[in-house]
Amino acid sequence: MKKYVIGIDYGTLSGRCVLVDVKSGDEVAESVLNYPHAVMDERLPNGERLPSSYALQYPEDYLDVLKTTIPDVLKKASITADDVVGLGIDFTACTILPMDMNGTPLCMKDEYKDERHAYVKLWKHHAAQGEADEINELATKRGEKWLSIYGGKVSCEWALPKILQVLREAPEIYDDTYRFIEAADWLSLILTGEETHSAVFAGYKGLWNAETGYPSNDFMVALDSRLDGIVGTKLSINVLGMDKTAGKIDARGAQLTGLKAGTPVSLPMIDAHAAMPALNITGDGDLMLILGTSACHILNSKDAKTVEGICGYVKDGVIPGLYTYEAGQAGVGDIFDWFVKNCVPASYTEEAKEKGISIHKLLREKANKLSVGESGLLALDWWNGNRSVLVNSNLTGMLLGMTLGTKPEEIYRALIEATAYGLKVIVEQYENSGISIKSICAAGGIAQKDEMMMQIYADVLGREIRIAGSTQAGALGSAIYAAVASGIYADVKMAAQKLSKNDVKLYKPIKENVKNYRILYKEYKILHDYFGKENLVMEKL
Amino acid sequence: MKKYVIGIDYGTLSGRCVLVDVKSGDEVAESVLNYPHAVMDERLPNGERLPSSYALQYPEDYLDVLKTTIPDVLKKASITADDVVGLGIDFTACTILPMDMNGTPLCMKDEYKDERHAYVKLWKHHAAQGEADEINELATKRGEKWLSIYGGKVSCEWALPKILQVLREAPEIYDDTYRFIEAADWLSLILTGEETHSAVFAGYKGLWNAETGYPSNDFMVALDSRLDGIVGTKLSINVLGMDKTAGKIDARGAQLTGLKAGTPVSLPMIDAHAAMPALNITGDGDLMLILGTSACHILNSKDAKTVEGICGYVKDGVIPGLYTYEAGQAGVGDIFDWFVKNCVPASYTEEAKEKGISIHKLLREKANKLSVGESGLLALDWWNGNRSVLVNSNLTGMLLGMTLGTKPEEIYRALIEATAYGLKVIVEQYENSGISIKSICAAGGIAQKDEMMMQIYADVLGREIRIAGSTQAGALGSAIYAAVASGIYADVKMAAQKLSKNDVKLYKPIKENVKNYRILYKEYKILHDYFGKENLVMEKL
Repeated sequence: MKKYVIGIDYGTLSGRCVLVDVKSGDEVAESVLNYPHAVMDERLPNGERLPSSYALQYPEDYLDVLKTTIPDVLKKASITADDVVGLGIDFTACTILPMDMNGTPLCMKDEYKDERHAYVKLWKHHAAQGEADEINELATKRGEKWLSIYGGKVSCEWALPKILQVLREAPEIYDDTYRFIEAADWLSLILTGEETHSAVFAGYKGLWNAETGYPSNDFMVALDSRLDGIVGTKLSINVLGMDKTAGKIDARGAQLTGLKAGTPVSLPMIDAHAAMPALNITGDGDLMLILGTSACHILNSKDAKTVEGICGYVKDGVIPGLYTYEAGQAGVGDIFDWFVKNCVPASYTEEAKEKGISIHKLLREKANKLSVGESGLLALDWWNGNRSVLVNSNLTGMLLGMTLGTKPEEIYRALIEATAYGLKVIVEQYENSGISIKSICAAGGIAQKDEMMMQIYADVLGREIRIAGSTQAGALGSAIYAAVASGIYADVKMAAQKLSKNDVKLYKPIKENVKNYRILYKEYKILHDYFGKENLVMEKL
Repeated sequence: MKKYVIGIDYGTLSGRCVLVDVKSGDEVAESVLNYPHAVMDERLPNGERLPSSYALQYPEDYLDVLKTTIPDVLKKASITADDVVGLGIDFTACTILPMDMNGTPLCMKDEYKDERHAYVKLWKHHAAQGEADEINELATKRGEKWLSIYGGKVSCEWALPKILQVLREAPEIYDDTYRFIEAADWLSLILTGEETHSAVFAGYKGLWNAETGYPSNDFMVALDSRLDGIVGTKLSINVLGMDKTAGKIDARGAQLTGLKAGTPVSLPMIDAHAAMPALNITGDGDLMLILGTSACHILNSKDAKTVEGICGYVKDGVIPGLYTYEAGQAGVGDIFDWFVKNCVPASYTEEAKEKGISIHKLLREKANKLSVGESGLLALDWWNGNRSVLVNSNLTGMLLGMTLGTKPEEIYRALIEATAYGLKVIVEQYENSGISIKSICAAGGIAQKDEMMMQIYADVLGREIRIAGSTQAGALGSAIYAAVASGIYADVKMAAQKLSKNDVKLYKPIKENVKNYRILYKEYKILHDYFGKENLVMEKL
């Protein structure tokens, strides 16, 4: 009798569930549910307008994913819950919510449903930038040692700025919160009845590390006296590494999912990190690029070093025995989408329609005919701020080199090139810190679809880029962790070797292009440092 | 019996002729001819492809304007040539051609018609930038005194770089040239049979001045030994100031135009300068803005000073007794047109269509609702290079501050604001050099039509801007010079007082906006200096 594991990838807009044959790795069935409330960035469910930079979610949507997609994949594969030997999930991060003692999110309680700070703050909730600035200033002033792990800067997307925002703007919600918890860990609690906290979330987004825990109470009090005692109360210290599991499905979890009580549940993973075993990226020096609306670049390394502007490292974060570093680009596909929506003339829309292709495809066709540097354009890829290595969400986009003859496809290509330069800055930052990168593998929708872009990336980096197989790397990765939790595999490396996908393509750098991009990158780097460090006009405007 | 004068404005794409009542100033009739060959910037008439940055014209087109528009205005007004007492023309500059001893342009001769360097080089022929650089380098090295009159830099649009390009690339054409002559002066020759050279062209575009003439033969030889003896041969020294006239129409001129032999012809004016008497801009400290596809800013002043980056001054250039300074912005309306053609999405095109308005108008409506600085965008207005005060045609456009929420109308407004900042740099350059600006008057199509833009200009400059009446200021100005040539008026000032147009509108700066634009301009100026002087990345790309 075949056995199966289930992986669920909780993305920004939907939950995606896959059923995987635990021996062969075959993805037998799949089911997706779009969150009914999607991302609330303009209004609360009651219609109240939200301030700018908000991004909230409603936790019941996550339960709907469990309720609908798990029975759906069982049905599609014509199997029963008896054949499922493990469940794993991955989630966006830091996506955090306040809950009461019973594990009920405050926003799901009647008395709080009109309070915006009672809701889930999604990873891309950017309204706590002021709090992040304050944390950075204080930590720098006090010389806090943990700051160096995070490249010297705390992002407004992380837990502490978000919690501080709740305290400052809605102190009564802060007071009534029993625990601030990652949505991923909240789902572990719902499924197993046990509250656990996954080290990968706490390590990357919660300022926690295995050696010294959270920032000291001294620091917390200096930040705001009302934070006194937060560690161990509103912030749990029950943080577990990937050698542990979240527990087993309990009666309530069984009722919710249709799975059997007692089914093992692995600790949740950050969505991006879950892709690594799925793509068999498990060695020292292996870098994974996840290219979507934004980009996340994750590196395994045997070395623990401080890399300025990189979002921290966590020991055993993904692969036991290795440190895992994370860096990010806040806008990639998002920038191209902005361009297509706002800057492409009607004549191009018409041409795409006539040819029966998307505008993106039309622009790529035209842009692909240009040679490197032909347009004379150069852009800084900061439409959504800069996550690494400048760590400043107030930075904005820049484009120069326009003449009266500049064409839309030239700008489109310049935007793609800019994101490649942005990545090269990150790669150089690692290498200048003494951390070597031995191989690069790209995943995510763009990596699969956009051949021109991937060739540009290979040329700009001057390195081979392999494209990994699964388009659902997150969900497969979660299933792999579930397979380890089931006890069928001894560790993640062995499970990954067996269940991961094969490569589909290899991009090799073209010598001539590498040479020309090296010249252009030099100019990019000068402007990167000028607008990122010297002239902070973007922040001022 | 009423008497009339004729003014013809030779623009970039057409010649515009007006018939003016010499006593009342009424514009009685008008006629326009588009040049049959327009601007040749891609191919010669024989189909041969031109290199980039070329802009050539065919001189027969100018004669076609004489042949068709003069009879046309006489017919429209039902008058005869007997009632016409003077003819004046104005022309783009430097628009130069090589001719033989008989006054025949080389390109109109069979043996040269396939030679691109035999054609008219239009003002915006930018292919002699290398030659301009060479001239600047040599003149700076040798400490040539005349260089300071031109703000320390010779533009590639001027005569000597264009002539040097002919010599370098087509030495046989250079050898066979009897004279290099402004198209305007060539028309004087055609009309009167006498070769004269108007000081305003020679002064602004030919490196000539009344005190020392052209650059020395020493300099010419140092530039290229083959230029030995050019002054007095291929460059005429018969340069006349505005107290003289071009002569009287001769038999050939009469046959060509239908006017009577003996009709006085004034010396030609540069098109932009001709507008000044037409708008009654004749006092010390009066600045005229001519806003069209590009912009030309002309200032009358009693003071002769060197102003870095300003295209020279000419004594008695427009108004006897005053020095006239000229500064320019290489792209204004051209940039907005580029934007509308290349960067406005189909949804806007549709919306404009539904409302039955132009896309420009739609964008202005939307942009007008934005408050100063709201978009966070800032641009450098160098899509067509920078004429003043950086004098570098290799500079390009820059836009920064884009986020994923940036809208087309925000970019459109940022482009308008950038051209206003570009103008403010010029105004400050005058004032920092001790030349005061007492009043500002705007002319040209944009000044008449675009209220939002003119208010932005008033707010950015922090000054009142008056809008003058005629939309055909160039042709009316030429008619005013013709009225002086006819002897009916004693001088230009008196003719201008009688025949010029009244103001139509006054824009007053809005205090709050002035304050906010002062902050934004400060940032513009920092970037202007950075990309204009420190980091010449635009030139390198």
